[in-house]
Amino acid sequence: MSVGSNEDKPDGGRTGRRPGQSGTREAILDSARERFAQVGFDKASIRSIAAGAGVDSALVHHYFGTKQELFVSVAQLPVDPQVVLAAVNAASVDELGEQLLRAVVGAWDGPAGVGILAAFRGVMAGADPSLIRTFLLEIALKGVRDRVDFPAGTGQHRVALAASQVLGILVARKMILLEPIASMPIDELVELAAPTLQRYFTGDIF
Amino acid sequence: MSVGSNEDKPDGGRTGRRPGQSGTREAILDSARERFAQVGFDKASIRSIAAGAGVDSALVHHYFGTKQELFVSVAQLPVDPQVVLAAVNAASVDELGEQLLRAVVGAWDGPAGVGILAAFRGVMAGADPSLIRTFLLEIALKGVRDRVDFPAGTGQHRVALAASQVLGILVARKMILLEPIASMPIDELVELAAPTLQRYFTGDIF
Repeated sequence: MSVGSNEDKPDGGRTGRRPGQSGTREAILDSARERFAQVGFDKASIRSIAAGAGVDSALVHHYFGTKQELFVSVAQLPVDPQVVLAAVNAASVDELGEQLLRAVVGAWDGPAGVGILAAFRGVMAGADPSLIRTFLLEIALKGVRDRVDFPAGTGQHRVALAASQVLGILVARKMILLEPIASMPIDELVELAAPTLQRYFTGDIF
Repeated sequence: MSVGSNEDKPDGGRTGRRPGQSGTREAILDSARERFAQVGFDKASIRSIAAGAGVDSALVHHYFGTKQELFVSVAQLPVDPQVVLAAVNAASVDELGEQLLRAVVGAWDGPAGVGILAAFRGVMAGADPSLIRTFLLEIALKGVRDRVDFPAGTGQHRVALAASQVLGILVARKMILLEPIASMPIDELVELAAPTLQRYFTGDIF
């Protein structure tokens, strides 16, 4: 259900008949997916997403919360960005690697792990990668990028390299089930791999 | 086309009518896939694979070459193990990280890259991960594991960690297209990421 404009859609306007709740949710998700892919996270407004779905902005917030929460619903992300952001914001620069890795692996190992894996499989199987790129660079690692941008201009390189190690651990631990990574206690995994992230974030690599 | 036994299959026995060439190839691949998944690469014999497909061992060799080459055909691997093995065998222990990464990324970036990506997507989308595990541990990294087994017994940890970084770079460079990793020249990528592999292989991490 993809809606271009409000006017010509009998059940989408404010005065028309409302579609069922699940139809409205789907229309909002479709519109959001399209806008995020077209203009990116920052430039996609809730207003334009609501307009695309033929509903009020208030209804978007009602169903999905903030724009970031809407993005999570659209992209079916492999981790809740709030978890990552909270850990990252609380960490000193010298602990970024450890805190980030612990937060992300903890999310995969937690109750949401099965859903996270299913979502990641979708992306890997060929879903639009722009959503996960947007998530990584504009949400999860945005705060990190500015904090590790030394020498100036290297922040993007640093966070992308760190992301590659995190993605690889996800694949090894949850998809390929590569031992001993698959069943390693989180503390041991963090001890072995966090220095890699920390080197990418703050090491003398350029 | 999956064949349990020879006797009750009219077109599979030596005296019966031969199926077409492509049917025979498929039967061998099916049988090999089953054997490799059941007993692993080392224990799966060409003889048992041939028997499962209702053909002579010679025909398996004729169509697929060595057992390792048959495995490559079955698993649709993201890289030719010969390329990896040649690089690894030629490298000193201190250069393992650099040589391995250069060989693997070179394979993805080469003419076979598109096919490699398609195969990897299949594994990620839910194909049996035992095949890619077997490839990583019993073929590609088998020689490496023995060479980096210091302190004794840490070889398996070391190669799995290195594999996680390589897998993550594959995902970032070829699937998510995460910049700057996606379009970074191979020399720069090797310079930035090879020290991670080398640390996993020979670093003081335990």
